[in-house]
Amino acid sequence: MSKSTIAVIAAVSAGTGAAVTAAMYSLRSKPADRPTAVATATTTVPVPTISPTSTATVPASKVFSAPPPTPAPVPLRTQPSATVVGPVDPAGLYQYGFPGPVADVAHRSALVSAYDRRTRNPHWVAEHITPASLAMRGGDRGSSNFVEDTAVPELFRAKLKDYFRSGYDRGHQVPAADCKWSQDAMNETFFLTNMCPQVGEGFNRDYWAHFEDFCRRLTARYPSVRVVTGPLYLPKRDPVDNKWYVKYEMIGSPPAVAVPTHFYKVIYAETAPSTGSGPGGNPAAPVALGAFVLPNAPIPNDKPLTDFEVPLEAVERASGLEFASKLPVQRRRRLCAEASCSLVIKEYGDRQKAFAKSGKK
Amino acid sequence: MSKSTIAVIAAVSAGTGAAVTAAMYSLRSKPADRPTAVATATTTVPVPTISPTSTATVPASKVFSAPPPTPAPVPLRTQPSATVVGPVDPAGLYQYGFPGPVADVAHRSALVSAYDRRTRNPHWVAEHITPASLAMRGGDRGSSNFVEDTAVPELFRAKLKDYFRSGYDRGHQVPAADCKWSQDAMNETFFLTNMCPQVGEGFNRDYWAHFEDFCRRLTARYPSVRVVTGPLYLPKRDPVDNKWYVKYEMIGSPPAVAVPTHFYKVIYAETAPSTGSGPGGNPAAPVALGAFVLPNAPIPNDKPLTDFEVPLEAVERASGLEFASKLPVQRRRRLCAEASCSLVIKEYGDRQKAFAKSGKK
Repeated sequence: MSKSTIAVIAAVSAGTGAAVTAAMYSLRSKPADRPTAVATATTTVPVPTISPTSTATVPASKVFSAPPPTPAPVPLRTQPSATVVGPVDPAGLYQYGFPGPVADVAHRSALVSAYDRRTRNPHWVAEHITPASLAMRGGDRGSSNFVEDTAVPELFRAKLKDYFRSGYDRGHQVPAADCKWSQDAMNETFFLTNMCPQVGEGFNRDYWAHFEDFCRRLTARYPSVRVVTGPLYLPKRDPVDNKWYVKYEMIGSPPAVAVPTHFYKVIYAETAPSTGSGPGGNPAAPVALGAFVLPNAPIPNDKPLTDFEVPLEAVERASGLEFASKLPVQRRRRLCAEASCSLVIKEYGDRQKAFAKSGKK
Repeated sequence: MSKSTIAVIAAVSAGTGAAVTAAMYSLRSKPADRPTAVATATTTVPVPTISPTSTATVPASKVFSAPPPTPAPVPLRTQPSATVVGPVDPAGLYQYGFPGPVADVAHRSALVSAYDRRTRNPHWVAEHITPASLAMRGGDRGSSNFVEDTAVPELFRAKLKDYFRSGYDRGHQVPAADCKWSQDAMNETFFLTNMCPQVGEGFNRDYWAHFEDFCRRLTARYPSVRVVTGPLYLPKRDPVDNKWYVKYEMIGSPPAVAVPTHFYKVIYAETAPSTGSGPGGNPAAPVALGAFVLPNAPIPNDKPLTDFEVPLEAVERASGLEFASKLPVQRRRRLCAEASCSLVIKEYGDRQKAFAKSGKK
């Protein structure tokens, strides 16, 4: 048992055969990278920090690093807490750094994302599309390249080599096609913090692409559409022992990036530009909400999209996230009750004809 | 495919058969619970908030809710960001609430913990033990009861019923036996935010218990010992397809709480009371670090503890956490080079004799 444990740990570890001692003594000492805050007895006022978000392809000035919702402000403990009761001070741990988790929230012009350092996938990526933004043409997909996000510390960063020959696509969470309004915006969608391993044929290149197109088409009816996209790791019941298990592949060598079992999209179709969308917004305007969960697997094009509609709470329960905690019930509408939640496959017509000839429904 | 997807989602969801519409409209509107912050163009100064940490068994005054490292401060967006460039404002999503993740950091007198709302296990739980704290006798384990942690929102809370008849122990991360110094302190270790599902026989009640005893024994040599404990979900290589998979059970109905594949402890043996440990501390004193990863499975008592020693970085890489980012390399020592990393099984002598008689090594 412990042999295999150590093998796993070794694999999860540096993959370099570094000895315990070497790893213990030579690593992890970059206190200047850590956010600090001034602690008082009853309040915390963080010192503003600028996230390291500059990258090779996107100018730092284009990256929204303020205000940064994370990393969380951590009290700098140089004295025992004034509120210590009892003989010990467990929060004294912070003298060695706050363990995390840190979600590496990135504020970019095209998207906002939160990253999961354990699965090396995003927790969520949020975008905003409007009729005007989709009409603009400044970006060309052929000029963008997939890039590692150096805003994430190296130890936790998804790498290009993790995806290489994995059999999975580098699946955009915010689609490149939603950010044609500038080359910089399109480039921002190519950070690996906007990617998850996705099944290519039948999913990322097919049904999922049609689903992304569905989101864009909503701008024909709604003046402002927000979409939050991310991975899920859902359990399945084992028919033999009747228990529930989560099982997912890890790609990379050593294994580093989780292959999600499912993906969700939460869609906010704003019936009027909301106060968060620009001047002239209406803070009381109804919002049509749609939540969808699709398996990371081939899906036939004739499968109705409504088969994948779920209660918003199901996505929240499975992801550990909350998507509408500040949206009053009286402003909520159900997207698929207002709009037709069906895909349009026409841009793949030729492929469909070929499918039909080969007998595929 | 989608049928089983929907079945899974339904199970992950309320488990009540609630219709999409009902779930969509009746839930998720408690804006008063949300932390808010005032955003300016370039800095964020969060309004101090007090976490809801009161519980049935521990007086709220005993819970360290200030300073709270999380939830992360979230800008309240009532105007488009001053830094918006381009036609869209993806961070306008925050008008509906910050999605998270929120780690529900709890500051208690006996422990500090961070919670994972997706797996419904802690990310980590930190404790502090000293010769003096272990010598105190104010708490009696028989007077403590396992309790749900109402500081975690109901949707994400681990429940007593999730563990009921699961076949797993409610395994303390900070051991009750480390907090005998007061009944309140011991009670604090019984929150489910300090628990993970652990294999009982051969692990939680045996090898893991001896390992916890090892940590306490370190206070014979070190005046101050900190221990951070938590779950891991490690991949294993499938011998058939040669790929790496993470697989873990989920207990509860609907499935809610993940069963970790492994557990880690990071031990900080402080050679002098550190500045975080009280007056008279030495900020330059060496710290002996030990990192261990054990499988959530029976382990024979004669297995050397050093078999489970790993580089600290291996725990960090697998957990997505950082444990010593502020501890300079020159202050670090390797625990198992300084101290004997071996278990003492004597308090289980009778059981050992029985084992010997039955032929077990």
